[in-house]
Amino acid sequence: MSSAFEVKASFKLGIIGGGQLARMSSYQAFRMGMQVGAVCSPSGTDPMEQVTPHIFRGDVSGYETLMELAKWADVITLENEFLDADVLARVQKDSGTPVYPSPETFRLIENKRIEKETFSDAGIPVARFMVVSGDDDLKKAGAKLGWPYVLKSSKGGYDGYGNAMVANQDEARRGFDKLGGNAGREVIAEETISFVKELAVMVARNEHGAVAYPCVETIQENHICTRVITPARVDRDLREQCERLAIKAAEAIDGKGMFGFEFFLTEEGELLLNESAPRPHNSGHYSIEACTASQFENHVRAVCGLPLAEPNMRSNAAVMINMLGIGSGDAVLSCSERPDTDNEEVHIHSYGKLQCRDGRKMGHFTVMGENPDAALERALKLESIIQIKGR
Amino acid sequence: MSSAFEVKASFKLGIIGGGQLARMSSYQAFRMGMQVGAVCSPSGTDPMEQVTPHIFRGDVSGYETLMELAKWADVITLENEFLDADVLARVQKDSGTPVYPSPETFRLIENKRIEKETFSDAGIPVARFMVVSGDDDLKKAGAKLGWPYVLKSSKGGYDGYGNAMVANQDEARRGFDKLGGNAGREVIAEETISFVKELAVMVARNEHGAVAYPCVETIQENHICTRVITPARVDRDLREQCERLAIKAAEAIDGKGMFGFEFFLTEEGELLLNESAPRPHNSGHYSIEACTASQFENHVRAVCGLPLAEPNMRSNAAVMINMLGIGSGDAVLSCSERPDTDNEEVHIHSYGKLQCRDGRKMGHFTVMGENPDAALERALKLESIIQIKGR
Repeated sequence: MSSAFEVKASFKLGIIGGGQLARMSSYQAFRMGMQVGAVCSPSGTDPMEQVTPHIFRGDVSGYETLMELAKWADVITLENEFLDADVLARVQKDSGTPVYPSPETFRLIENKRIEKETFSDAGIPVARFMVVSGDDDLKKAGAKLGWPYVLKSSKGGYDGYGNAMVANQDEARRGFDKLGGNAGREVIAEETISFVKELAVMVARNEHGAVAYPCVETIQENHICTRVITPARVDRDLREQCERLAIKAAEAIDGKGMFGFEFFLTEEGELLLNESAPRPHNSGHYSIEACTASQFENHVRAVCGLPLAEPNMRSNAAVMINMLGIGSGDAVLSCSERPDTDNEEVHIHSYGKLQCRDGRKMGHFTVMGENPDAALERALKLESIIQIKGR
Repeated sequence: MSSAFEVKASFKLGIIGGGQLARMSSYQAFRMGMQVGAVCSPSGTDPMEQVTPHIFRGDVSGYETLMELAKWADVITLENEFLDADVLARVQKDSGTPVYPSPETFRLIENKRIEKETFSDAGIPVARFMVVSGDDDLKKAGAKLGWPYVLKSSKGGYDGYGNAMVANQDEARRGFDKLGGNAGREVIAEETISFVKELAVMVARNEHGAVAYPCVETIQENHICTRVITPARVDRDLREQCERLAIKAAEAIDGKGMFGFEFFLTEEGELLLNESAPRPHNSGHYSIEACTASQFENHVRAVCGLPLAEPNMRSNAAVMINMLGIGSGDAVLSCSERPDTDNEEVHIHSYGKLQCRDGRKMGHFTVMGENPDAALERALKLESIIQIKGR
């Protein structure tokens, strides 16, 4: 492992996707003097459109658009996982531009069954599951996993889409059909987990090594992450165990880049790896201010082959609150009182989305605190003060 | 003073100038969801060119180019002071777009004589000076201020350009001519100050109030700032006195925006205001990581009429080192050893300048420390490891 590095000022980082994750990664690439290009939707309103002149509009998961980016860039990364490993592999091969995370890594996580098998084979606990291909299997799943259980399409699900909780054979049949099981899509049945908390760990990894961010606690509402508490309010041993599992998971898929790993903490105190994301993740936004190197800095470092920066906490605790859109119309960030009256830190991020919609991720803010509960209490007060609304 | 605020997502910040200060301010504007436009040189290689699609190329101090920016923007600010207050006033009037710092503020600082009179009238100590308009005055200046003294053109000097140290009548005559005195340019003679340290304070100010950054110690080589030590290694009382004077100076010129004030600490322990800059300043770069709100964040907040953020130190001390270009050619940021081996923070910024030249400001890095001396010792070690070179 070499510790030296070089970055030429004309270095071009290509990002597949034009959303807020790409945008926040760009700020860090800019800081290193890099240029950033992005594949964006044809709408012309993606958050990336405002922060770089190098925009490649088109089908954001299609070969043609990705090739345009690849021909421009020195290295390519991504901000979402709704991409096809085969397409990524072809783009990498045809353009000669490396893609990180690699198509090989992508192949292991783009399919939930393969992903779970990979992690399980590496000794990382996951919820029990089985592939179901029809009525008999759905029944067997009930017997093996217990009712209710969760049906998931192997490919393409996110934020609860592509999932169905089923309580009996009849619901299972309907769920199976809804998820495309009868149309030939692979569906898995997974046991329901009674969890006491959801935890998450970000890991950056490349040829220089791997670093884990502090284990955080995530709070979801309607399958969307709304709050992240750092560090997670669990025993230190458990947090460290979670961080070790996350690094092991990154190794299991030979991940190069930034990865988010979400865990269930079960009633029995067991950690189960639930989901992985091959990119910066909402649960890591707190790191922008709360850590000495943010997930976006290490994302850029990891995919560009630079040594990783240690992500130490700058304060005892931090809480991130997602600003979900309120109402429809032109977006306005508003603060109804001065947020820093009490002289504590509050860091606001707006993603530059021009149009607000109810529940749309429009921005986030992070507050620091002496401990997680104090930070959370303060964050919840500010939640009704700092908002992004449609007008 | 209202503490509430609003920022619409389509808010457009216009910056006159395409250099690194504009670039670093942009990152903070982006974070608030804003769009950024910049007046750039026709070269197409200004640092701003890579971080926004909204570029207005042309004469960066000319009415026509500034009007293009003004018609696009909701508010205009700047990154250098080589602008004419009259032009700014016309642009503001003709476009209806507010300019901060205001043309009125600019009028008070664009001319060194008026600037010094303004500060002096406000009770802020400055070096003794007089206007010189010919041989007689040059002689009188020698008698009044003592030899050697410094001749300065009232308008347009920076980083030592536009200054001449003169030790006798003969040198004074030559200096006066070189500075355009015989061609009608206003020249002032200023006493030489034997200073023990150079100190600087950044101040953000707008209708919501004013905040001062910690008093820092700057080290210049060949009239270019190379190192900044925070806090300055002087008594706490003196630092606080310096911070109070800086706020008073910002008030004296009714400054709205971000301002840098440079002071001499004389052998007698007196503080003299030496220079002012109506913009983010090299001596404030440390604040990006060392403070809870950087000078660039407060620059954006100040000119956009948002409440200012308290700039508290995140660590006991910090040192910033300018990375001046080494050699000519394509710029390459290089690190010959891993800089974070000892697990302390080092934050590297490269400005995205494609071409390196000897002595050109190409980037900077900041390190933290338990105290100023420890941070400086570490920074000086890293100075030979982290460099930007031409190739």
